[in-house]
Amino acid sequence: MNNFEYKNPTKIIFGQNKIAELATEIPTNAKILMLYGGGSIKSNGIYDQVKTALADFEVLEFSGIPSNPEYSILMNALDFIKSNEITYLLAVGGGSVIDGTKFLSAAAFHEGETPWDLLTSRKPVLKAMPFAAVLTLPATGSEMNSGAVVTRRETKEKLAMSGPALFPQFSILDPQVIKSIPERQIANGLADAFTHVLEQYLTYPTDALLQDRFAEGILQTLIEVSPKILKDPSDYNAGANFMWSCTMALNGLISQGVPSDWAVHAMGHELTALFGIDHARTLAIIAPSHYKYNLASKKEKLAQFAERVFNISEGSTEEKALAGIDATEAFFHTLGIKTKLSEYTEDYTGTAELISKRFTDRGWMGIGERGSLSPTDVAKIIEMAY
Amino acid sequence: MNNFEYKNPTKIIFGQNKIAELATEIPTNAKILMLYGGGSIKSNGIYDQVKTALADFEVLEFSGIPSNPEYSILMNALDFIKSNEITYLLAVGGGSVIDGTKFLSAAAFHEGETPWDLLTSRKPVLKAMPFAAVLTLPATGSEMNSGAVVTRRETKEKLAMSGPALFPQFSILDPQVIKSIPERQIANGLADAFTHVLEQYLTYPTDALLQDRFAEGILQTLIEVSPKILKDPSDYNAGANFMWSCTMALNGLISQGVPSDWAVHAMGHELTALFGIDHARTLAIIAPSHYKYNLASKKEKLAQFAERVFNISEGSTEEKALAGIDATEAFFHTLGIKTKLSEYTEDYTGTAELISKRFTDRGWMGIGERGSLSPTDVAKIIEMAY
Repeated sequence: MNNFEYKNPTKIIFGQNKIAELATEIPTNAKILMLYGGGSIKSNGIYDQVKTALADFEVLEFSGIPSNPEYSILMNALDFIKSNEITYLLAVGGGSVIDGTKFLSAAAFHEGETPWDLLTSRKPVLKAMPFAAVLTLPATGSEMNSGAVVTRRETKEKLAMSGPALFPQFSILDPQVIKSIPERQIANGLADAFTHVLEQYLTYPTDALLQDRFAEGILQTLIEVSPKILKDPSDYNAGANFMWSCTMALNGLISQGVPSDWAVHAMGHELTALFGIDHARTLAIIAPSHYKYNLASKKEKLAQFAERVFNISEGSTEEKALAGIDATEAFFHTLGIKTKLSEYTEDYTGTAELISKRFTDRGWMGIGERGSLSPTDVAKIIEMAY
Repeated sequence: MNNFEYKNPTKIIFGQNKIAELATEIPTNAKILMLYGGGSIKSNGIYDQVKTALADFEVLEFSGIPSNPEYSILMNALDFIKSNEITYLLAVGGGSVIDGTKFLSAAAFHEGETPWDLLTSRKPVLKAMPFAAVLTLPATGSEMNSGAVVTRRETKEKLAMSGPALFPQFSILDPQVIKSIPERQIANGLADAFTHVLEQYLTYPTDALLQDRFAEGILQTLIEVSPKILKDPSDYNAGANFMWSCTMALNGLISQGVPSDWAVHAMGHELTALFGIDHARTLAIIAPSHYKYNLASKKEKLAQFAERVFNISEGSTEEKALAGIDATEAFFHTLGIKTKLSEYTEDYTGTAELISKRFTDRGWMGIGERGSLSPTDVAKIIEMAY
């Protein structure tokens, strides 16, 4: 097991009818900016619940934060925050709204030349405006971690930031929201959380037995609940397990003491930036090819994954590993998610070379848990995913 | 799944040679009281590592905190804290030293008549002197939770306290310490952590699938590493998994959204108070009888436990449940821990009635996850454990 440091101060308030607790969690003198997306919270009742809970507070609103939160829109929000002397941010939405809010909380206190520095500098964010979240879409885990991803359409870039100041002060998770989420987004959430675990688990053995068990437990739970949720999104217990699994998949716990990969995300982000494909679906496109391409270095963990998560007990280590990859692809298919780039766009020729060149231009000469995947490897993996 | 609120702000610093980081974690102007037990830290090098790390701080010492931290000794420490104007407490030890330090951190800021109130009032502790821990004995999880247990020899009582102010600010866990722990205490730590999980897991099903998987993962890990550690306590990886499992067994995570039992602890504490039997061993005495006595209400979870943790797949739900209890007792035996009260003392006659009466006197009329175990039930369970 590798050395590690772990601290996660976010308070999770989980369960039915918990949005009402907003009023006791936010400082009474706060001037709040409530941030949300396209307005689905107005039709599913969340907007009203939040406004009712915050009736005694001064609350302004900023809506229209899109999925893959767009830099130019966030810059408008930043102007709004500054000109209205906002002191507290409340994200009401999924990962995109929460990530956008994290960027804003850092940008509001940023002293550099341009807030874009926050995304290119890769320096940990140590100072940020306090913020919290009401989660409306289980998927990214952003509600209990200190990372964020922001997209810039202008340059077709999608970059990440993180730091100890970017943990939400608290997040409210009411699984009742799941019944109003469109099936496509539920499927995305399941695939996203599943892949988050794979990125932290399918590397190489480091004798971190407990972390492996926890990772496998999240995967098993997602597999167990996914057919129930897709059949009946109002199944509260299935939804609650889905929601808590998404949070635990990326709140830092299972990555302690082990190597992390994140190459699937690095490549997937480019597919979203280039083609606008849903984030989770880009992961489902890349993951099978990535694991096949890296079979030699990942086969021990892949075989363990196949055995413990999919009960595949026959065959050699390599055969089990390959069966595990096939089972993963089959799992994505059960969610209605396609796993080849050509199933999303006809315009895929040259994508491998383009992304490979972008990595080279950024100086990303070695990604993955060993830092050993070169831009040439990246091109080959993406070509396998066509 | 039940509603829950979860926050755990303790920073964990885990790994080899991490004690040196004390200097960067404690405020530079702190006047530190270092608390420890019988002096084993002087022979295993931990004392020197701590003193070296804190060379630039003002550090006073209070040693001699016994296992099952004794109220009268802690009261001496409290006088010392007050007369020396201490501002920061550093526990260097196992659960007893850390629990004693938690009591002191609360007592230092307590405004009531006598600090004993903190243990009898059952009110959450909201104010306490900042403190941290260097863990030298994996077992209780006290290094990452907000609970403490204190013993008062005078009245043969052992009582618990808790509250959000009782989380350590940080805890340093260096698994290298395990090689110098006596085998008896390693065995105790394994049994203690194992039983902590059982108390939060062997109740009744609430469809908390992920919490169950995590609980099972900790149990599987403890079973996997225990023979390795007992054979070779210097096996770093086995020790690291043991240490992290003990922390995760009682840091609040696996108890979210599920009922908790804690009847085994309630009864076990009395055996320590009456006979001085090691805490972990009292749990091993009580647990098998407790689960057999409550088979009807616990059989679903017991059967799941037998299947997933011990691979027992044959038989009815009741048969699997019973086989799971037998496997648990056998696991304790592999640790060299006896599971009958009569194996520890010849003087056990009347214990059942005595403890039952104590529960009645304290008004503990219903314990366990349903609050349904009366003092009469308690007497029967303890008699089964003779």
